[in-house]
Amino acid sequence: MTELIDVPAGLRNVVVTTTELGDVRGREGFYHYRQYSAIDLARGRTFEDVWFLFLEGRLPEPEERARFTKELAPLRVLPDELREILPLIATAGTRPDPIAGLRTALSVLAAARGLAPLWDADPEQRKADAMLVCAVTPTILAALHRLRNGQEPLEPRPDLGATANWLYLVSGAAPRPEHARAIEQYLIATADHGFNASTFTARVVASCGADLVSAVAAALGAFSGPLHGGAPDRALASLDEIGTPDRVDDWVRARISAGDRIMGFGHAVYRTEDPRSVLLREIATGLGGDLADFATTVERRVVEILAELKPGRELYANVEFYAGVVMELCGLPRALFTPTFAVSRVVGWCANVLEQAAGSKIIRPSARYVGPPAPQPLS
Amino acid sequence: MTELIDVPAGLRNVVVTTTELGDVRGREGFYHYRQYSAIDLARGRTFEDVWFLFLEGRLPEPEERARFTKELAPLRVLPDELREILPLIATAGTRPDPIAGLRTALSVLAAARGLAPLWDADPEQRKADAMLVCAVTPTILAALHRLRNGQEPLEPRPDLGATANWLYLVSGAAPRPEHARAIEQYLIATADHGFNASTFTARVVASCGADLVSAVAAALGAFSGPLHGGAPDRALASLDEIGTPDRVDDWVRARISAGDRIMGFGHAVYRTEDPRSVLLREIATGLGGDLADFATTVERRVVEILAELKPGRELYANVEFYAGVVMELCGLPRALFTPTFAVSRVVGWCANVLEQAAGSKIIRPSARYVGPPAPQPLS
Repeated sequence: MTELIDVPAGLRNVVVTTTELGDVRGREGFYHYRQYSAIDLARGRTFEDVWFLFLEGRLPEPEERARFTKELAPLRVLPDELREILPLIATAGTRPDPIAGLRTALSVLAAARGLAPLWDADPEQRKADAMLVCAVTPTILAALHRLRNGQEPLEPRPDLGATANWLYLVSGAAPRPEHARAIEQYLIATADHGFNASTFTARVVASCGADLVSAVAAALGAFSGPLHGGAPDRALASLDEIGTPDRVDDWVRARISAGDRIMGFGHAVYRTEDPRSVLLREIATGLGGDLADFATTVERRVVEILAELKPGRELYANVEFYAGVVMELCGLPRALFTPTFAVSRVVGWCANVLEQAAGSKIIRPSARYVGPPAPQPLS
Repeated sequence: MTELIDVPAGLRNVVVTTTELGDVRGREGFYHYRQYSAIDLARGRTFEDVWFLFLEGRLPEPEERARFTKELAPLRVLPDELREILPLIATAGTRPDPIAGLRTALSVLAAARGLAPLWDADPEQRKADAMLVCAVTPTILAALHRLRNGQEPLEPRPDLGATANWLYLVSGAAPRPEHARAIEQYLIATADHGFNASTFTARVVASCGADLVSAVAAALGAFSGPLHGGAPDRALASLDEIGTPDRVDDWVRARISAGDRIMGFGHAVYRTEDPRSVLLREIATGLGGDLADFATTVERRVVEILAELKPGRELYANVEFYAGVVMELCGLPRALFTPTFAVSRVVGWCANVLEQAAGSKIIRPSARYVGPPAPQPLS
């Protein structure tokens, strides 16, 4: 019999692959893209710069940035192959499901364009596919949102960058600069984050040699799972429920007594403050207003109560908590909080898919059979 | 720093989970579903019996079989939510891509029905979703095929079982009994096969708590990859290329000299004859005809040459080799070979998804960062 290798449940800490894309250091509260602190990048660079960094392994020179920006503009236009079908996708079902809608639309686009399997495609073709998928994702998501609400999709504006276009395509108005910059910092800070479950899913599919959209569509499925984490609307819903600062204690204690998780707190890897949460808190308080004040009050008190009720667990606000606050302050409708996360994370998925495709080893683990002895005779 | 655990590349032989669904014993040339030999099941049972076995953990009593069959019939009808969009999905692109088309259609259906996340759904709801997805998959695939060829989709016939309906929905004629039974044995023999890459993908997505279609859509992506294996049309294409028995030697030697793989031979797990290939060879020779004779001649000679040129590698015909022969002999068009495989494998995926969903541990491994030391300052 083949020797099976036992490892911790859920493959926790098991090394699937090497990567040059980045890492998360949970005990330090630090994560990086390539060799740069992700938070430094969010503070000092554009989303396009970080996107280029993932694709090329280095930050762009000025003329490279100009060329990259120019290449992206036409890729952002809604593909003709989607114009007829997108209204049908947008209006399926009684509740909007933009992540499923994006998966559907990308799946149509891949078939329409005859996307080559990663196994057959050369590196330049793979990169072109990745740029298309990342560039068109916000356009599709904004079009789905508008169509669902009975509005016509808008054409992207060539004079706006990736982040401003996302906000423009949703609302029809060019965003205020401080809102565009706040959302851009959010997009940079959430583009990738170690080997999360959706990223791993994308790499498994890529390891089979399938086309890039097959990998991204699979990642979107994992991403939609309640256990994936990162849904920025859930934590904001908690703030709504709490309502006023004097109700924090009762609300938190009741949830914990009931055995419920407090959305927006705790992380699988971080044992310190989540560096994304630290950045987003700073952005939220910079934007100001009652919601930002309320959120910081709630955060402080929840962390104190969690430390009291669950000592030693090191539970802090995670990326969900302030992400929703920042998006709300920037005027994004809540239905677009998770889609905004997808706009950034698709860049990380694609970088991981390209890295996986450059190798060729299929990811194919085993399971241990624990049922009744086989074979039993058929009665 | 977190201690990372190094394991063989591609997670080979690493245990991700326990399972009661079955196993593959590569050295024995044996595989089983639950406690029964899969080949015994293919010889002695219906596809519906095996489907029930996966769902319920035991073979059905006669009255259970009758009830199960009755429950499946309405689930097989093309959902109204797909009738308007399916022609657009079918005709996307210059080449037909039925697997991408199925993924698109299921993604629409999930959004239209508002499929519950596995994490929230109770076991009965999960099972109902799985029955729907498996029952409707052949209907969707047949409709895509017919629409692509300018034909109207057909309504399933309540008097026909799952296999006969698949063949009827494609061709418009009730199949000859020996063809329906041959394809039924193929479907049973390929419904599941250990922890293959698409099954693993489905389980990763299910482990995030996403809905069942998200897991199946992800599996379809892995399945579409050239490294996944099992595409029954590739081996038949090789038979076409060889053309006549006297050309086998030259063809095989030329391919091996060029470093190409011989499609239809060799398997990641089996070190003996693939038991599926043994069954399908028997079915093919039972159906008879020139193609069956030619295939057995080619198989024998290829195995001899491979033993000579790659001694010790134990390369035998795999499931691909005779699958295409059997489907061709039963009159299935080649464009439907891989879709027929999907019709069977979706049952295995769903069984795995249900088993995974019954646990709650997210599958989330790690990667080892090997890039330049971080953080470097931003210039």
